[in-house]
Amino acid sequence: MRIDANKFAPFLGFEITEINEGEIAGELDFKPHHQQQNGYLHGGITSAILDMVEGFAAYSMVREGDLVFTVEAKIAYLNRGMGKKFFAKGWVMKPGKRFHFCEGELWYEDDGGKKIIVAKGSATMAVIPKEEA
Amino acid sequence: MRIDANKFAPFLGFEITEINEGEIAGELDFKPHHQQQNGYLHGGITSAILDMVEGFAAYSMVREGDLVFTVEAKIAYLNRGMGKKFFAKGWVMKPGKRFHFCEGELWYEDDGGKKIIVAKGSATMAVIPKEEA
Amino acid sequence: MRIDANKFAPFLGFEITEINEGEIAGELDFKPHHQQQNGYLHGGITSAILDMVEGFAAYSMVREGDLVFTVEAKIAYLNRGMGKKFFAKGWVMKPGKRFHFCEGELWYEDDGGKKIIVAKGSATMAVIPKEEA
Amino acid sequence: MRIDANKFAPFLGFEITEINEGEIAGELDFKPHHQQQNGYLHGGITSAILDMVEGFAAYSMVREGDLVFTVEAKIAYLNRGMGKKFFAKGWVMKPGKRFHFCEGELWYEDDGGKKIIVAKGSATMAVIPKEEA
Repeated sequence: MRIDANKFAPFLGFEITEINEGEIAGELDFKPHHQQQNGYLHGGITSAILDMVEGFAAYSMVREGDLVFTVEAKIAYLNRGMGKKFFAKGWVMKPGKRFHFCEGELWYEDDGGKKIIVAKGSATMAVIPKEEA
Repeated sequence: MRIDANKFAPFLGFEITEINEGEIAGELDFKPHHQQQNGYLHGGITSAILDMVEGFAAYSMVREGDLVFTVEAKIAYLNRGMGKKFFAKGWVMKPGKRFHFCEGELWYEDDGGKKIIVAKGSATMAVIPKEEA
Repeated sequence: MRIDANKFAPFLGFEITEINEGEIAGELDFKPHHQQQNGYLHGGITSAILDMVEGFAAYSMVREGDLVFTVEAKIAYLNRGMGKKFFAKGWVMKPGKRFHFCEGELWYEDDGGKKIIVAKGSATMAVIPKEEA
Repeated sequence: MRIDANKFAPFLGFEITEINEGEIAGELDFKPHHQQQNGYLHGGITSAILDMVEGFAAYSMVREGDLVFTVEAKIAYLNRGMGKKFFAKGWVMKPGKRFHFCEGELWYEDDGGKKIIVAKGSATMAVIPKEEA
């Protein structure tokens, strides 16, 4: 399985919790090695996680054997990552023959249970048919 | 020191090798846990490293005590990350009072020593003066 | 009025049809000079319109006299612009003290009245308080 | 010719001044209808021009009959557009089979003749071979 072949997600501590067609969700327990210099979630982890959920969302819509790779991705950092647990979701905004345009969000819940969005992502995933791979 | 306070860089194995005003360089030895599903460097690591070198490049141009944070970042993935060692550089393309616009590159050298660029980044770093932080 | 001071919107033929706090809508009747080389809506017009609705959405949330300017913007081109009339909406995804993060969409309706999204935008708008302007 | 088929460039007043393989340059004389609300060059024009020079740069590297379209584009607005004449250049940063990654710049010269960069662009251009178009 392609998602299992990914060695970086478990190293990071990111777990996929839900796989639907065109939509993937996962979680990360915040650990000290995830901190940037001011104690918040490192932006690089945010971008790594968004890359995963956006990419897996694209994978979930291709045929067995087709390849998917990230052409480009943008992330807007909306709020500081201050939670103890982070949640992420990636979805295919617009599927296509050559590309899947994806978006993603990473968030935590504050003490009152309110969802605070840390980052919003927007990525272009290329689909390479297995015949050309 | 702010760069030392960053816990994620050593966890990832990324080392800063050069710090100049407005320009930062570093290296990563490729390890199995850095792989994505096809054995190449994970795009999330590429984005994490670019975020570091672009952010540190911005840091290198602010006063002691000022804060820097990533407002947004885009990455274009130009080539597959196939090397055994990866190099990264981040620089301030246009410094400013409120923002430093930064760019970054991540690359490896092929067997003939040719530089193959894996990714090019473009990021907006906000500067928060210590008086307002 | 700031929106009226904009000379480019009328030149382009783009009309604002709705102004709410944090959300702006408008329309463009497709004319021959809006074409790119294959007869579709020129991507530069799409980007110009998204810049307007995203920027105006940010303007709608600042105090009289504060300035707003686009720091950066990304656009994903989802479908060819084949309509006779185009619609656009811009909204503030996340307001802030220093920035308003905005998004926008441009679309047309096909012969059956179905909404076909041509482009999705994501932009960072800086807010400069009048005291500092 | 494809560049001539583009109706929007002449409407805008943008002229291509140089065409080389993988690199395109052009100029715009600043007119009142190019103004945004504070009298500077409208960001939408900047984005339209960058889309043109980046797209034409990609065109210059494909076979007669192949199609090129913008998948996504990002623009960073570095300085206010205050000139009387604006210059733009687009180039292919990394050509490829399926995509050409392009960059572009728009600038003016201040009274002392110094180049002031108004915006830097980064775009993904898809190449559709004529056999599939």
